[in-house]
Amino acid sequence: MPIKKRLEILSLGDEFLLGLRDNAHLSYIGRELARKGLSIARDQELRDNAEEIRRHFLETWERADIVITVGGLGPTADDLTREAISGALNLKLVPSAEAEEAVRALIGRGGRAVNKAHLKQCLVPEGAEVLPNALGTAPGIWLEKDGRILVMLPGAAHEMRPMFMNQVLPRLAARDIALINDAFLQLRAVGITESEITQLLAPVFAPLHSRISVGYGCSSTGIVDVRIGADEGGATWEEIEKLGESCRELLGANFLGFGDVTLAEVVIRHLRSREMTVSVAESCTGGLLSSAFADIPGASKVFRGGVVCYNNDVKTELLDVPEALLVQHGAVSAETAVAMAAGAQEKLDSDYALSVTGYAGPEGGGTGSPVGTVFLGLATPEGVWSRKVFLEGARTNVRERAVLLALDWMRRRLKNFASEPVLPEKSRNTIKVG
Amino acid sequence: MPIKKRLEILSLGDEFLLGLRDNAHLSYIGRELARKGLSIARDQELRDNAEEIRRHFLETWERADIVITVGGLGPTADDLTREAISGALNLKLVPSAEAEEAVRALIGRGGRAVNKAHLKQCLVPEGAEVLPNALGTAPGIWLEKDGRILVMLPGAAHEMRPMFMNQVLPRLAARDIALINDAFLQLRAVGITESEITQLLAPVFAPLHSRISVGYGCSSTGIVDVRIGADEGGATWEEIEKLGESCRELLGANFLGFGDVTLAEVVIRHLRSREMTVSVAESCTGGLLSSAFADIPGASKVFRGGVVCYNNDVKTELLDVPEALLVQHGAVSAETAVAMAAGAQEKLDSDYALSVTGYAGPEGGGTGSPVGTVFLGLATPEGVWSRKVFLEGARTNVRERAVLLALDWMRRRLKNFASEPVLPEKSRNTIKVG
Repeated sequence: MPIKKRLEILSLGDEFLLGLRDNAHLSYIGRELARKGLSIARDQELRDNAEEIRRHFLETWERADIVITVGGLGPTADDLTREAISGALNLKLVPSAEAEEAVRALIGRGGRAVNKAHLKQCLVPEGAEVLPNALGTAPGIWLEKDGRILVMLPGAAHEMRPMFMNQVLPRLAARDIALINDAFLQLRAVGITESEITQLLAPVFAPLHSRISVGYGCSSTGIVDVRIGADEGGATWEEIEKLGESCRELLGANFLGFGDVTLAEVVIRHLRSREMTVSVAESCTGGLLSSAFADIPGASKVFRGGVVCYNNDVKTELLDVPEALLVQHGAVSAETAVAMAAGAQEKLDSDYALSVTGYAGPEGGGTGSPVGTVFLGLATPEGVWSRKVFLEGARTNVRERAVLLALDWMRRRLKNFASEPVLPEKSRNTIKVG
Repeated sequence: MPIKKRLEILSLGDEFLLGLRDNAHLSYIGRELARKGLSIARDQELRDNAEEIRRHFLETWERADIVITVGGLGPTADDLTREAISGALNLKLVPSAEAEEAVRALIGRGGRAVNKAHLKQCLVPEGAEVLPNALGTAPGIWLEKDGRILVMLPGAAHEMRPMFMNQVLPRLAARDIALINDAFLQLRAVGITESEITQLLAPVFAPLHSRISVGYGCSSTGIVDVRIGADEGGATWEEIEKLGESCRELLGANFLGFGDVTLAEVVIRHLRSREMTVSVAESCTGGLLSSAFADIPGASKVFRGGVVCYNNDVKTELLDVPEALLVQHGAVSAETAVAMAAGAQEKLDSDYALSVTGYAGPEGGGTGSPVGTVFLGLATPEGVWSRKVFLEGARTNVRERAVLLALDWMRRRLKNFASEPVLPEKSRNTIKVG
């Protein structure tokens, strides 16, 4: 096991505190560190104010072993991180020839001239190492001082992420702080709540209680992640894999997969192994079900496409849903869901088809079927079925939950016929014992 | 102007630090506070650990005037906020009859019995006021002590948000800490970078420099928000509205609207005012363009629907794109984009139609048109056009940018014919002068 260190993050930028943007840096870094056996002890979002940065940095530096700052390394007047923190540590800022060369090359490729603001970004605290930034003008900084590590990264996500992955994690691993391989096995479940799964799996984990760490996390749509790690107790990877297999057996049909797998991915995988295709017909979900499939790289071999029929005429024109049926049963009905799925299956020439029709709110609904009433349809080579569900919450939640339930319904249908996928190769990591 | 207070947030929950979830509480609270003239000085995400919560709470309580905690009020063992903070303040936890009554009523409605865990949630620090929670069993807490205010809220977003809006903000306004009306005017621009807009608008703001505050924020897709506030200088709302109008004139076609308006909303509004309709045909965006329209409440009067043609046969079958054209020019071409838009316009019987076809990666592309090449099509009552764009970045970015560019293209087209919308009524607020 690696050496246990206290790691803290400082997220710099007014945008996080003014509600202009979610701090996605934190969840990214948290996820990648967790994967390598490290956890964040605390994060702070601070204003772009030199005195605030100085004060809270010093208080953090006193207690933490590793401090990672994100943001505030840019060329503008409110980019104060470099200056404030160097000042707090009594370190002079000196020009880095390496950083300057990289900036000149990058700017030169764009055919522009290097200006004073660019050169400000090439200043680093004395004794620091430059972390090159292939995609922007603000290099990162790596500094070891008084037995502590300071890492400073730029705030543009597409610049920060590869720097963190390719430069920061390997340096932490080289110092035996982070693991080289994955630290935990993650499994994902659906159709079960976080508290149900905690109860269900408790007996599996009990015998190894002191030698593993178990974490649960639940998304807003209802996917539950379970992470089994060796932590300090030092269970072997073989023991952890065995636990993973036991969990999967216990979870049965609620087991979705190992790793970061999504519902649409599992459905696509099942279909691809049988060389079959799927299409979509949706109203209230407005394109979200289609895009769940289209999100999966390589989906084009399996996902043929979809029809978003916001208007009833479109259901009739493109999917051959009989007008009389719409008039008699209504657009939100079991009959319409079935006709939409069958229509998509035929018109888009697919083996399977999923349909969704419902009232997502704020309008629509009525006495018999209030806002939140959703009908799902599923056409398979064997026949076509419908299901009625009632979803609470705001418009967005209703739509997201409807997509999840449609995909999960199809997954469960497919699972009855398919053999289970084996534990994916990439999970077969070994934990380094320090 | 309200009294200037230092306000800090403590976000409790391992999930934020383990990368399991973005901290959306922070951006929600930040946005709503900013609207009422308050800003967050600092946020901290802390672990579910009593000693960590105690230590960082005390350090925060020492300097802040208002501390808001979110999360950790639930019934389980890792919900420690109530106990840790009461302990830190040397306050006993006492049962609240008011909270108990509410919990009994809520649980009773669900037909369940009240248990010990529920009753734990009804404990409040001595002297605290209960903030009722209409949607869950964890009430909030409002405590005034030593000239400071402590607010504790549950971590479920759908419970926390109405409590914050209906109970916390009015209490802050009653103490003259928050404004009753909106504190700033927000305007939104598209097709211009944050640094370009800063330069462009600087001369507008210069004369009132000391009496206003101006903030800029840029989304990952390229929408820029400008917020003009009275701040401490105390500009009147009339002066700020006048500045807003000057910005709008200067921005010209890049001006999107006042407030939180979206591109799809502006397009829908333009179309509705002319009683015209739109439909969509998309491949690489996989349903995202459709769902941008469907996201807008009331879109069904204008948005007829869309076809997601992931497979070429679907383009031919549903949109009448000639097979020979696909063979000759390829699926990603100006000709196909035009045929898709024209096909959608006809088959979905709409006045306008937008199409997108491109290579979002990781597959596809070639020597002539690499990954990131996207063709847009626009059919209007006057004719049909195409546009080629090249988008850098990962698959998700390419898709999001393609949707933005398609919508913005249509908006600019429509704008040529439409008269400008007036400043919306809800922005016509007055700033309270304290």
